[in-house]
Amino acid sequence: MDVADLGLPVDVPSTALFTDQYELTMLRAALASGTAERRSVFEVFTRRLPDGRRYGVVGGTGRVLDAVENFRFDAAVLNFLREREIVDEETLQWLAGYRFSGDIWGYPEGEVYFPGSPIMRVEGTFAECVLLETVILSILNHDSAIAAAASRMSAAAGDRPLIEMGARRTHELAAVAASRAAYVGGFATTSDLAAGFRYGIPTVGTSAHAFTLLHDRERDAFQAQVHTLGRGTTLLVDTYDVAEAVRTAVEVAGTELGAVRIDSGDLLLVAHRVRQQLDELGARDTKIVVTSDLDEYAIASLAAAPVDAYGVGTQLVTGSGHPTSSMVYKLVARAESTDPKAPLVAVAKKSSGGKTSVGGRKWAARRLDSYGVAEAEVIGTGPVPAELADRQLLVELVKGGEVVAREPLDAARERHTRARAGLPMSATQLSRGEPVLPTEYLHESSGS
Amino acid sequence: MDVADLGLPVDVPSTALFTDQYELTMLRAALASGTAERRSVFEVFTRRLPDGRRYGVVGGTGRVLDAVENFRFDAAVLNFLREREIVDEETLQWLAGYRFSGDIWGYPEGEVYFPGSPIMRVEGTFAECVLLETVILSILNHDSAIAAAASRMSAAAGDRPLIEMGARRTHELAAVAASRAAYVGGFATTSDLAAGFRYGIPTVGTSAHAFTLLHDRERDAFQAQVHTLGRGTTLLVDTYDVAEAVRTAVEVAGTELGAVRIDSGDLLLVAHRVRQQLDELGARDTKIVVTSDLDEYAIASLAAAPVDAYGVGTQLVTGSGHPTSSMVYKLVARAESTDPKAPLVAVAKKSSGGKTSVGGRKWAARRLDSYGVAEAEVIGTGPVPAELADRQLLVELVKGGEVVAREPLDAARERHTRARAGLPMSATQLSRGEPVLPTEYLHESSGS
Repeated sequence: MDVADLGLPVDVPSTALFTDQYELTMLRAALASGTAERRSVFEVFTRRLPDGRRYGVVGGTGRVLDAVENFRFDAAVLNFLREREIVDEETLQWLAGYRFSGDIWGYPEGEVYFPGSPIMRVEGTFAECVLLETVILSILNHDSAIAAAASRMSAAAGDRPLIEMGARRTHELAAVAASRAAYVGGFATTSDLAAGFRYGIPTVGTSAHAFTLLHDRERDAFQAQVHTLGRGTTLLVDTYDVAEAVRTAVEVAGTELGAVRIDSGDLLLVAHRVRQQLDELGARDTKIVVTSDLDEYAIASLAAAPVDAYGVGTQLVTGSGHPTSSMVYKLVARAESTDPKAPLVAVAKKSSGGKTSVGGRKWAARRLDSYGVAEAEVIGTGPVPAELADRQLLVELVKGGEVVAREPLDAARERHTRARAGLPMSATQLSRGEPVLPTEYLHESSGS
Repeated sequence: MDVADLGLPVDVPSTALFTDQYELTMLRAALASGTAERRSVFEVFTRRLPDGRRYGVVGGTGRVLDAVENFRFDAAVLNFLREREIVDEETLQWLAGYRFSGDIWGYPEGEVYFPGSPIMRVEGTFAECVLLETVILSILNHDSAIAAAASRMSAAAGDRPLIEMGARRTHELAAVAASRAAYVGGFATTSDLAAGFRYGIPTVGTSAHAFTLLHDRERDAFQAQVHTLGRGTTLLVDTYDVAEAVRTAVEVAGTELGAVRIDSGDLLLVAHRVRQQLDELGARDTKIVVTSDLDEYAIASLAAAPVDAYGVGTQLVTGSGHPTSSMVYKLVARAESTDPKAPLVAVAKKSSGGKTSVGGRKWAARRLDSYGVAEAEVIGTGPVPAELADRQLLVELVKGGEVVAREPLDAARERHTRARAGLPMSATQLSRGEPVLPTEYLHESSGS
């Protein structure tokens, strides 16, 4: 499917410089040593989840597909590499014609993952695959960290909608990707207009304290807002005195007032008081939105409070304490020669120090118990056991260089809801614990 | 100065959508209520430093200037806002002609800051200033968080160079800004080619474990690398056995080998062993680079180890535990009417809950003790005391909408070195503590 078919404006520049220099120097040396064309398999995985987390959430797959499609070296980039003498002329020639022509399989976006899960598998020549390391990791590490935090928050919020409003707390373009990942993880809307523009996410927002302070009286500000945005708007009631503001709000907008927003103070206490006051004023349908430094724990603690929606900023865009996902991109197999038919050899770093990897090209499947609940993440290098054949997790994303798995963002969002629901119930407990599924390895040598 | 004069390629798209929706709905309501043209002063400040930190570092000022200059609403953006019915036609007309025409003063990039420091002051009509909130905060909150972490690391590293290599751990464009902020905070180089391209930061990088694993023998990989990149290259020696790799490396490259890199294991122990082995092999000038999950504490703990350079990734781009800076953008004063001559009234949020602000348009100065060491951050709303007149911190950045303070990145980097050196020595202690300077307020009413 062409991206234009999704009806979303997309504007992805060349992604070829989102690359660490060593990828180009390795390419240069491999071209010189005659190994560049050896068929190779790289895999993205993580050795561990963030401390105490029960599951990870794949975020950014769709952005990886955009990035791979746009990974081209134009004249300005080639000139830069030439002037800096990062590569030689032979390599520049090779880069000028670069276009990824291999295959990519991976966990689809929104799927959950565990330590060792082969989240993405990139296969082609060493030369064409090694260049994609940094951009693939940047996207998956960032977006998955946000999606995981969003998932915990949306589990804690239950049916109450979550508003993403963290743009001001992170890099301006990371914010757009964060909005996107939050939507995958279960958020309903965003305040970030760029995220609405780029990804079609519903946007919301009415006013800040500055708008009240701009006017001579709070009442003037409320009247101006209601006059312009209608009675269904959300009025911010904590600039001066909350109780007085609520009274003024209902006087100005009537009992049809859409919502009030509380952005400071003891939210549990204030929400109860405001609810009581609104009810006494007859504004029983007026909703309460809270938005002050919330995270999944604060959301959970407000479960019994009369709150109708949560706005989350800082803790969402910083991954609620874990702003990155520690995924790595490792060569796990490569051919013995540049003959395209040469068999693959499993390879892995061997030295001590906790950074060892499992070699070999892997499949993954999620085994269910007799109740249909997931009980293990099974990863193997040999044939897939028959009973797991229809529980496999990797799907084809890129085939011979062509993206074959583009999908609307809602598909990833719905997939995440299903995937999380298929885990044991303890997955969504907020308390720290082990990954909710164990990872089991089925190695070729051990049979299967 | 035009950005092109810096000799750096710059490509900043329109920044107008890096905006929270409420800024546009406030604009719309203010245009309707007749308050949009009231002269207003917004200030950027933080109520606190991250827990235990001694000082903050201003990062991103140069990027803010680019963002303000490029804040324009083109047809695609206006159509989006129209289709989503976020604003009305009157507001769309206003936005179509938008160009910031006010003044911006601020702490120059690389300067240090403290709780309450007016890091940036934006002055103009309410309408033109309110729109810049999100993009200014995104840039300053992100870049300052990275610059602060970089500063702590560079203080810990002393004269040993720091390499920024965190691109894969954060959003691909946040990574470019992080490289830039790291350079301001004292890093020497980056692995991120986009940061080299966009900001002229020196780039480095040679090879990863994948390059060794691609070859049939470690020796083949080393030979290929040395053949292509020269004897001065850096060989990665921890794919299999470190001692064997170091022996092979010197056999292949000779004693002129530039450096070896260690990326796993007990770095203190391994560095000592490798240094001894290199010396015994006669490779006394071969340097040792270490690169495994370092932060400022790990760097400090290696001060006595025979290490020549540090590569830092995750902890740099995630702000070493504090990925954002909690800066806010608050209306502190506004005119009583739309008359351009109308006097300014100080305004501030008043409700309880810890989010109160100090109203009024502020100046800031750093008072020195008799030894010339900084002793207090003085912030005031009245006249500047004569003895502080030449210690003022805010400089003019934008005048009547024109950027007047563009500077090369090295100027910010050097400014940071000077600013940090002017603080009490305890500023660079890594242990948790209070801000190294107290913030003193001199209010207009209290005289000065």
